[in-house]
Amino acid sequence: MTIEPNTPTGSPTPRTQVRRRHDRGVYDRQTVEGILDAGFLCHVAVVEDGAPRIVPMIYGRWGDRVVVHGALANQLLRSGTNAEVCLSATVVDGVVLARSTMHHSVNYRSVVVFGRLEEITDPEAKASALAAVVDQAVPGRTRHARGPTPEELRSTRVATLRLDEASAKVRTGPPVDDPTDDGLPVWSGVVPLSTVAGAPEPAPDMTPEVASPARIGVRGSSPAPRAVGGAG
Amino acid sequence: MTIEPNTPTGSPTPRTQVRRRHDRGVYDRQTVEGILDAGFLCHVAVVEDGAPRIVPMIYGRWGDRVVVHGALANQLLRSGTNAEVCLSATVVDGVVLARSTMHHSVNYRSVVVFGRLEEITDPEAKASALAAVVDQAVPGRTRHARGPTPEELRSTRVATLRLDEASAKVRTGPPVDDPTDDGLPVWSGVVPLSTVAGAPEPAPDMTPEVASPARIGVRGSSPAPRAVGGAG
Repeated sequence: MTIEPNTPTGSPTPRTQVRRRHDRGVYDRQTVEGILDAGFLCHVAVVEDGAPRIVPMIYGRWGDRVVVHGALANQLLRSGTNAEVCLSATVVDGVVLARSTMHHSVNYRSVVVFGRLEEITDPEAKASALAAVVDQAVPGRTRHARGPTPEELRSTRVATLRLDEASAKVRTGPPVDDPTDDGLPVWSGVVPLSTVAGAPEPAPDMTPEVASPARIGVRGSSPAPRAVGGAG
Repeated sequence: MTIEPNTPTGSPTPRTQVRRRHDRGVYDRQTVEGILDAGFLCHVAVVEDGAPRIVPMIYGRWGDRVVVHGALANQLLRSGTNAEVCLSATVVDGVVLARSTMHHSVNYRSVVVFGRLEEITDPEAKASALAAVVDQAVPGRTRHARGPTPEELRSTRVATLRLDEASAKVRTGPPVDDPTDDGLPVWSGVVPLSTVAGAPEPAPDMTPEVASPARIGVRGSSPAPRAVGGAG
């Protein structure tokens, strides 16, 4: 039950070459972008004092780059700008149950990107990159919400990571059991997993003149179906 | 719309001290374990040739440690055993929409653990640690599936990471808008997100004598409600 390393777009570099389960490595840009477009949370690693440090971050795909942001004091952005980082985003699609414990697995789509964070300082480009982050999670949201003031922009650090050295790894399908386990009376198969967005919960200070939408689309999720006989 | 760094159990060490949004940092072991117990996917980072590398991995919490595993050739386990690693697990509970784009956020629970991977070689301990990984994703599964053979155990590397230097970071609740934005006619609130497990899909080679369960519990998910008027 393992998720193995990942690998790059175009042709693999030594560190993006999928090392284990080469059959699961995907190098084309379209696949990488498709996986990034299916979520909004990533994990970013930097090296600090010789040791790795991971920070979960919200991202936006912005053409051929990924945008991340944080406060000016954000240590990861300070350590990672112009330094090597690694960014990973993973979507879990299901749990794969085999007849034997060792052949259990997970259906997933994951991306790993290597490179250096580049800070954006031009205010217009910064605003555009930040909008990509907000619209990544809630598509179209920046058409409705108040945009950033010059002061808010100045208090935020925005950095991008090019997708030049990126790779995807994907597992789909049923379990692969040992042929010798064929006769075992153990159920095997896949339990599919998905993310569901519930009904929007208005902030306590929302006034009645701002109508609550019945649903709000969140990246990577589907609306919750109404339950049978659901009360309230 | 940021997820900021994380921090440690007990008392913070310099690298687990939550650096940003201290109000969101949680140091007690119970909270850290609770977040780890809510999922089964993590991201692990190592340093290779001076640069960070992240690999998504399945884990199991095993008392005061986290267990990860992989093939003997798994590069991360080879690089990370007896070397500094960082492990992060994050659960996203909702998207927080504010009246202004800059106050958008995410409700989440995340854990970051620093330490060195320690390999387990004793076959009995190894089997027990591997069972923790499988049962993490599908609680109780190892009572039904065939356990590992001595050969399977030998072909797998199992490593643990102590929770001694771990921290949690949590955001809950509604958006926090600028008071000056109070009058804006923009909806603000939270869209809750959850993971749903669909009906189990039997492997193509399942024979009719092995009944398909109506549902299988997967860590961190709830069963999908039957949709209203849903047709087969």
